[in-house]
Amino acid sequence: MSKLFSVILYIIAFTVQAKSPYEIIDNSPDLAWRDLNPEQTLYITLESGVVVVEMAAQFAPHHVENTRKLVQEGVFDNTNFYRVVDGFVAQGGPSNPEKLAKPKGGKLTIAAEFTIKPKKPLNFTSIGLPDGYAPQTGFVGGFTAAYDKQKGEYWMTHCYGTLAMGRANEVNSGGTELYIVIGSAQRYLDKNTTVFGRVIAGMEHIQHLQRSSNLKGAVDLKDKNKIISIKIASDLKINKRLALQTMKTNSQSFKDLIASRKNRNSKWFVYQHNHIDVCSVVVPVRLKDAK
Amino acid sequence: MSKLFSVILYIIAFTVQAKSPYEIIDNSPDLAWRDLNPEQTLYITLESGVVVVEMAAQFAPHHVENTRKLVQEGVFDNTNFYRVVDGFVAQGGPSNPEKLAKPKGGKLTIAAEFTIKPKKPLNFTSIGLPDGYAPQTGFVGGFTAAYDKQKGEYWMTHCYGTLAMGRANEVNSGGTELYIVIGSAQRYLDKNTTVFGRVIAGMEHIQHLQRSSNLKGAVDLKDKNKIISIKIASDLKINKRLALQTMKTNSQSFKDLIASRKNRNSKWFVYQHNHIDVCSVVVPVRLKDAK
Repeated sequence: MSKLFSVILYIIAFTVQAKSPYEIIDNSPDLAWRDLNPEQTLYITLESGVVVVEMAAQFAPHHVENTRKLVQEGVFDNTNFYRVVDGFVAQGGPSNPEKLAKPKGGKLTIAAEFTIKPKKPLNFTSIGLPDGYAPQTGFVGGFTAAYDKQKGEYWMTHCYGTLAMGRANEVNSGGTELYIVIGSAQRYLDKNTTVFGRVIAGMEHIQHLQRSSNLKGAVDLKDKNKIISIKIASDLKINKRLALQTMKTNSQSFKDLIASRKNRNSKWFVYQHNHIDVCSVVVPVRLKDAK
Repeated sequence: MSKLFSVILYIIAFTVQAKSPYEIIDNSPDLAWRDLNPEQTLYITLESGVVVVEMAAQFAPHHVENTRKLVQEGVFDNTNFYRVVDGFVAQGGPSNPEKLAKPKGGKLTIAAEFTIKPKKPLNFTSIGLPDGYAPQTGFVGGFTAAYDKQKGEYWMTHCYGTLAMGRANEVNSGGTELYIVIGSAQRYLDKNTTVFGRVIAGMEHIQHLQRSSNLKGAVDLKDKNKIISIKIASDLKINKRLALQTMKTNSQSFKDLIASRKNRNSKWFVYQHNHIDVCSVVVPVRLKDAK
C-alpha cells in the first residue's frame, strides 16, 4: 500500500513538474510550427553571411509590399549599414535615398503604419503579465506585439532582432531606412516607427558590423558594412532557400513556453520571478530538414 | 505688452522643455562624472580588440577580490569564450577549471553573492516606475540594481553588457565562468547568479565572437574566440590605461537622464510612454581626454 502511494506520488510529481523551454521546443508537435512565408521573407547578404528576416504583413501591409517592390528593383543592393550603434540599432539601405532615381514600383517614402485597428480582434496570445509600456503584450502570428483593448489597437514591439523603418521628423517619411534592434529591447520606440518584421536567423552577422563610433569618436562607415544584396525568398530558387520554420505563437507549445519562461523549474534556478517580459520569450526557429 | 507676453511665454516654453538625453550628457558638469576604479577594472584583450569592464565591489566584494587574484595569477590568459549564444550571453574563461592547478591566491569556486543586505540603506537612485521582476529598480554606484525595501535587500540586474558569474547547479560553484549579457536583458537570471560588473567599452568585440551554434547545429569553439589576456587596470602602466569615466548615478544629471528617457520630448517622437525600464537607461561613459 505504501509502495502504491509512493508510485502515485511519483506520477503526480512527474506530471506536475513543468518542462524546461528546451524540452517544450524539442517535444513540440509539427503542428505547432509553420514555414516562413517566402513572399514575406528577406535574404540580406552581408560580407560575413546571410541574415534571414520575416516581414509582418498583418501589422504593416504597405511596408511589406513596398519593401518587396524596392527589393525587387534592387534599391538595397550595394548599399550599406551606415549607422550601427552598439546596444541599440543597426540601420542600413541607401544612405541618400532622396538622390535615387524614382523607383518604378515601390515608393521611397510611404505612410506610417505605427498601429493597426482591425475590425475583428486578432488571434493574440497574451503574456498575461503587467508591462510598463502597454496595457497588454503578447504575440500575433509569430511576432511580439502589444494590445490596447480599449482602443482596439495593436502594434509590434521593439525587441532584440526586430526590424523597423527609420524616418525623419515627419511621420510619413520612412521607406528605405531599415533598422534592426541589436541590443536591449527599445520599447520606447514602439508606436513611434513602423515595425514590420524580425530577424529569423543570422543576427551574428548584424553584430559583426562595424560600429558608427568608438571611444575616439565617430567612425566613417561609408565603404564598410556592405549590403551585397537583399532578395525576396520567393524570388530565389528552391534549393537556395533555407527550410526555416517558426513556432506558431497561438499553439499550445508556445503557451507552455511562455509559462516555462515565467517560472523556471529546473534544479539550477534558486529564485523564480513569476514574471517574464514579452521581449524575453524568443519565438523558436528551426530548420525543417534538421529535425 | 503683447510682445512682452510672447517673450515670457517663450522663456517658459524654453525652460519647461525637457532636454534630450544627449543634451543632458553633453551639458553635464565634470562633478557628475567619476573615474573608473583601476583596482576594479578589467582589460580583456580579444583578437579583435580590448573590452573594458568595471567590477562592482559594493555588490560582490568577494567575487571582485577573487577575480582580481585569479587575473593576477593569469588564470584567464590564453583561455576562450567557449559558449556564445546570440541574443543571450557570451561565457568565457578556463573551459575545464576543475583541471587547473590550485591557484595560490584566488579560489576556483567561491560562495555566491546573489544579493546584499547592508546595515544602512545604499545611495539608491530609484527609477521610480513599476517593474515586473523587482519591487524597485534603479542604480547604485554606476550599476543597474534592484531593491526590496521590505527585506532590505539589493541586487544587480542582468542588462545588456552586464558581467556575472556562471555556475553549476550547486549555488556556490562559480568562480571562473565569466559571462556577459549580449542581447536582451536577462532579468530572469537576477538573484540566480552573482552579478559583479558591467562592460564599459568594447561590447562590439564581444559581439564579434563566433556563436556556439548556427542553423546546422553546434559549432566547436575550442580553438576560437581566444581571450589573449585579462589584466587589472591598476597593473597596467598609466599610459596603457584609458582615461575612462562614467556618470555618477546619484548625480542630478543622471536623474535628469532618467526623466528624459521616460518621456522623449524631441520633435521626432509622436508617442511618449511615460515609462522606461532600468535596462534602457544606459549609464553614460566618456574618455576624460576626449571632452
